[in-house]
This record gives sequence, C-alpha cells and structure tokens, in this order.
Amino acid sequence: MASRSIRLAVIPGDGIGPEVVAEGLKVLEAVAPSSGLAFEQTSYDLGAARWHRTGETLPDSVLDELREQEVILLGAVGDPSVPSGVLERGLLLRARFELDHYVNLRPVKLFPGVTTPLAGVKTDDIDMVVVREGTEGPYTGVGGVLRKGTPHEVATQESVNTAHGVERVIRYAFEVAASRPRKKLTLVHKDNVLTFAGDLYQRVLKRVGEEYPQVATDYVHVDAATMFFVNQPQRFDVIVTDNLFGDIITDIGAAIAGGIGLAASGNVNPDRTAPSMFEPVHGSAPDIAGQGKADPTAAILSVAMLLDHVGAGDAARRVEQAVSDDLAERAGLGARTTAQIGDAIAKRVSG
Amino acid sequence: MASRSIRLAVIPGDGIGPEVVAEGLKVLEAVAPSSGLAFEQTSYDLGAARWHRTGETLPDSVLDELREQEVILLGAVGDPSVPSGVLERGLLLRARFELDHYVNLRPVKLFPGVTTPLAGVKTDDIDMVVVREGTEGPYTGVGGVLRKGTPHEVATQESVNTAHGVERVIRYAFEVAASRPRKKLTLVHKDNVLTFAGDLYQRVLKRVGEEYPQVATDYVHVDAATMFFVNQPQRFDVIVTDNLFGDIITDIGAAIAGGIGLAASGNVNPDRTAPSMFEPVHGSAPDIAGQGKADPTAAILSVAMLLDHVGAGDAARRVEQAVSDDLAERAGLGARTTAQIGDAIAKRVSG
Ligand SMILES: CC(C)[C@H](C(=O)O)[C@@H](O)C(=O)O
Ligand SMILES: CC(C)[C@H](C(=O)O)[C@@H](O)C(=O)O
Repeated sequence: MASRSIRLAVIPGDGIGPEVVAEGLKVLEAVAPSSGLAFEQTSYDLGAARWHRTGETLPDSVLDELREQEVILLGAVGDPSVPSGVLERGLLLRARFELDHYVNLRPVKLFPGVTTPLAGVKTDDIDMVVVREGTEGPYTGVGGVLRKGTPHEVATQESVNTAHGVERVIRYAFEVAASRPRKKLTLVHKDNVLTFAGDLYQRVLKRVGEEYPQVATDYVHVDAATMFFVNQPQRFDVIVTDNLFGDIITDIGAAIAGGIGLAASGNVNPDRTAPSMFEPVHGSAPDIAGQGKADPTAAILSVAMLLDHVGAGDAARRVEQAVSDDLAERAGLGARTTAQIGDAIAKRVSG
Repeated sequence: MASRSIRLAVIPGDGIGPEVVAEGLKVLEAVAPSSGLAFEQTSYDLGAARWHRTGETLPDSVLDELREQEVILLGAVGDPSVPSGVLERGLLLRARFELDHYVNLRPVKLFPGVTTPLAGVKTDDIDMVVVREGTEGPYTGVGGVLRKGTPHEVATQESVNTAHGVERVIRYAFEVAASRPRKKLTLVHKDNVLTFAGDLYQRVLKRVGEEYPQVATDYVHVDAATMFFVNQPQRFDVIVTDNLFGDIITDIGAAIAGGIGLAASGNVNPDRTAPSMFEPVHGSAPDIAGQGKADPTAAILSVAMLLDHVGAGDAARRVEQAVSDDLAERAGLGARTTAQIGDAIAKRVSG
C-alpha cells in the first residue's frame, strides 16, 4: 500500500542516548511498513559534545528546523562534564517550553513478568497515567540571585501558574481519564501550603470537571501521594499535577513499575502547533554508556507513544505488545545487550 | 533526687491529635521521675474547633505564651471542615516560622519486627535522618494571585532561599552526619532546574563541608532520591534538603519504614532562641478519630526526640528502646487500642 511519510527528528543526545535511540528506531522501522508509514529521519547533533565544541545548547536555527518536523525522538541529554542545568535548561526544557509541550505524559504500568520492589503487588495493581504540566510551574526559570556569594545572598525561584496553562492540561487529563475504564482523575498538589497555585488548580479542576460528569475526581497532597505510590498504588488511575510534582512522582512511578529502564514519556503539544517529543524518562547514564548494557525498553515504549501521537494506534499497540511479551520472557533469559533486546522486540513486530 | 522542671506546652489539636498526645504524655510521665525530670504542662486549645469558634488560628497572645515555654508537643491539626491551608499556614507553619524552627528533623528508621512494603529489605537497610529546612524555600507564602477567576489569572509561589538559612541548616546536618557511624551527608535538591536555589545549596555544602573533612558528601536530584528510597534505601545516611523536598521525601520515608503511624519529627530551633516543637508526621486523620484506633507510636517517638532536645538523652534512649521492643512483639499480638499501646510502652519505661 502507499505509505504515509512522516518527518521525524532524532536527537540521540549523550551517554546511552544514542544506543537506546538506535533500538527505538530499529523497532520503528520494523513496524512502519506494515502500518503504511515511512519515517523521513533527520538527526540533530545536540547535547554535551556540541556544547563543548560550540557553546551551543539549542540554537535558534535548530529550533526553527525542529518546528518543521512532525515529531521528535530524543534519547537523553546530560554529562558530568557540563555544569548542572546548562543542558537541562538550555536544551531539554527549552525544547519543552518553545514547542509548547504542555502535557508531559507518563504512563506508570507494571508489565507482566517485571519485578517491582513492592512486596505483594500484582501486575494489575499498577496501571496509571500521570499527566504532568510541562510549560510552567516551578520550571519557568523565573527567579534570580542577589548578593551572590555573600552572607546576605538571596536566591529565588518562582512558580508561575496561569489559568490558561492549568486549564489546558487539566482538560487533557479529563480526556485521558474519560477514555479509560476506571474514569478516575486525581489532582496531586500541595494546596495547603502553596495556596495560590493549589487553589487555582482546584478551582479549574472543579469547573472543567462539570463537563465530564462520567469522571470521578479527587485530590491528594503530593507528600501523601508518594506514600500511596508505595503502599497503595491501586489508588490511582489518571493523575494531573504540576511540573515539579510530576517530575518527582513519575520517578517513584518508574521505581515501582520495575525501574527507570522501562519508563517512557511524551512531551506533547496536543494542539499540534509544534512537534511533540518522545523520550525515555531515564538520563544519559554515562557510567554505562558504550557498553551495550543500557536497557532500550523505555526508548522503545516511547516510540509506541510516538506512534500513537501520529495516529498509528495499531502500530503502537503492536510495539507495546511486543515489549510486553519480551518482558514476560526476560526473567528466563540471560543478560542481553542493548542491541539484542532491540532485535528481539523488532523481530516480534516485523512482518 | 531533686528533679529538674521543664515548661512543656501541649497542643493536642484536631482529630486523633488529642488521643496520640495523651499516650505520648503518659510515656513522658512514666519516664520522667527516674530521669530527674518534671514537666510543668500547659495545654493550648488550638486547631479546627477554635478556628470555628473564634476565627483564630495562632493568635499573637498565644504565640507570646508559647515563646515562654521550653518545649512544645503537638498532636495534629486540620479538619475537612476548615478550608485547606487555613490551619496549615495559620497555625502549623506560623509556629515553625515564628519560632524559627529552621531544622525539621525526621529520622527514617525501620525497627525490627516492622513490615516494610519493600520486598527483600532488612531492618538495617533503612536507617537515615532527614534534615529538612523549615523556615524558607517554597514554604514562605510569598506569591499571590492576579486576575483571580478570569481566563487571565496568574498564580505565583516564590521559593526564597538565603545564605543565612541554607548555611545554618547545612551546618546542622553536618553535625548530625559527623555524629553517626557512616558519616555521610547527601544533599537532595533539583539544581539542574531550580538553578538559583540549587546552586546556593551546592556552594554552601561545599564551603561548610571543608570544616567537616570526616564527612563524605554527595548530591542526588530529588526525583532520583525518591527512586532510591524505594529501590536502594541503604544509599542514605543523613540527607539535607529544602522545605518542600523534605516534606515529600519524608512521607516516602515514612511509607518505607512501616507507615505514617511510626514517623516522628522535631521542629527544632537549635539556637534555642525559642522553644522547639515535636510532632508526629501524620495528620489528624478525622476518619478514625475518637475510636481508639490511632497508633500513638509516632507521638511517643516524638516524645523521645523531645527528651533528647531537653538534654535527657538517657530517657530518650529508654523510650526508643521501649518502642522498639513493643514493635518487635506487635506482630504476635492482636489489635490493640491507642491507650493499650501507650500503656504497654509506658510500662516498659517506668521505674
Ligand atoms: C533532566 C530534567 C530537567 C528532567 C525534568 O526535571 O523534567 C527529567 O528529570 C525528566 O523528568 O524528564
Ligand atoms: C500539614 C503540612 C503543612 C505539613 C508540611 O507540609 O510541612 C505536613 O505535611 C508535614 O510534613 O509536617
């Protein structure tokens, strides 16, 4: 059949980024033909090496090129040789903010056969989706430092939250909740301390919720939420939360669902005014880079989310199923290299 | 022997607060005589009921009286009938800020016989102390709301961090670390995103650390820290962190160490310019209030911390040991009421 061509930007990045992205692409290429898709790839050299070479993180010219793409696959960025924050703020967060990735979508799901550190927890007990706000809150970078290095130094960070920003992410979360069997949406915040921002989230949740009578809503403080992740993960179906709380709880989510090697994410612009970006939640793990030890599963699951985003739901389901089948058999297999895992999953989706 | 008299303010508070405080006081009174201590108690009626009656949370006059006390024992405050934030900001946080409780001290320790939700984790694997900053960071209440209720609403929350505030809590944390066998101090922050505040914490850690060459330091992002709490808790000895991150990670700490019913805390003013305040980490749990179901162990362990603070280390150790012995036998006992647990522990420390 005639295939639909999709412009895909690839940002392999640093450390294990290129290795896991290679496996993600392997699986993407294996599944694409039978789904009537062809990906036109452009690779972008961004990350620590480029910063060392040129001082650039995400230059305007590259950002402009990225805007012309339909979708982005990112590996991981960051290296100990680069001061903390330079690549995070200059590249990763810059992309999320400039491309208006206001939904940071992070499924937390325990696949059959995967070991969780939680005692007595079964596969079905952990199956949630975190809808993390991606373009405001404490991540704005607003703030500064006065009298740096003196005993009178003051450093501030401002969490900025807007009705516009809060409403659109909450609306998205209601849509996700409405599409799932349990139809439950939990707001996670800290409204008893962060009273201005928390109150805004609460009011918008209530107002938008009137349009979704089929979705049950509740509220949990972020501190209590982390506790429930550990001792009552069944409690959650869909969670909506701010940028920083979402960052934190999705790492606990990754931990309880079998580790950071399995956690996928999408930086989504639901309005499609710019390309969305899919990436594993894990970092660049420079300590194991280049050794074929990295688990490419999170990158491959991110490819499944990417496929969903471009409207190839069938292909997405096939990739997920292949990952699920691979995970179910892993315990019985010996150690495999990054490429061997990619090959095995690619084989399952081919044809 | 002649006993030393200590002025103790008691704030029973709401929900299960009065019940667990009663057991804490029972144990305190049981251990005091043989330690040469006598507590002169004054009880303060603060919390939801007073707010409903008078609209007051922590009036200036009461605050002035509290300042004249040596130490404070608090149960819990909060009730669903009071809007979120009113009692938290108006009472609990007001006390912490006004009495300069710049160290929020939270041990995370798995006692023998206590069940953790983590598979394969042994008693010795969880033994850390979190030194949470208590008087600044995102808890300042600085911020506001513009165009409330309109589509153009903006709500801000400002994290304010000072060299003064950061240095004193880090210094305290180094002292705690230096006094423990492992002598390891981990800074938990998010310096790759909250670059101004994170950088201040990092620089102060480095500078103060030069005075403590015997203490090894490292750094973990808050998101990764929550993951390590779940899959590698042995990693931590002493943690120093900001007010909000400390709130979050100590709840996971409570979860992995057997639940919120066991987590004690101290709001400490190490300079003793005002009384310190000891309280269980749990809330007022109105759903189980008045039924004798609340576990008073966290309140009793908070009493042990209180004893340490007033210089009665021996008595503190006896209370801890009694709690530890009680916990070790709990699995074999049936359900006990709040008072029965208090009685059992009081009996162990008497004489
Ligand atoms: C690298 C960092 C800026 C990033 C974040 O905090 O969002 C990461 O932790 C994530 O969760 O994607
Ligand atoms: C009740 C709330 C204000 C408080 C906090 O956030 O500090 C509580 O969660 C705690 O940890 O003591």
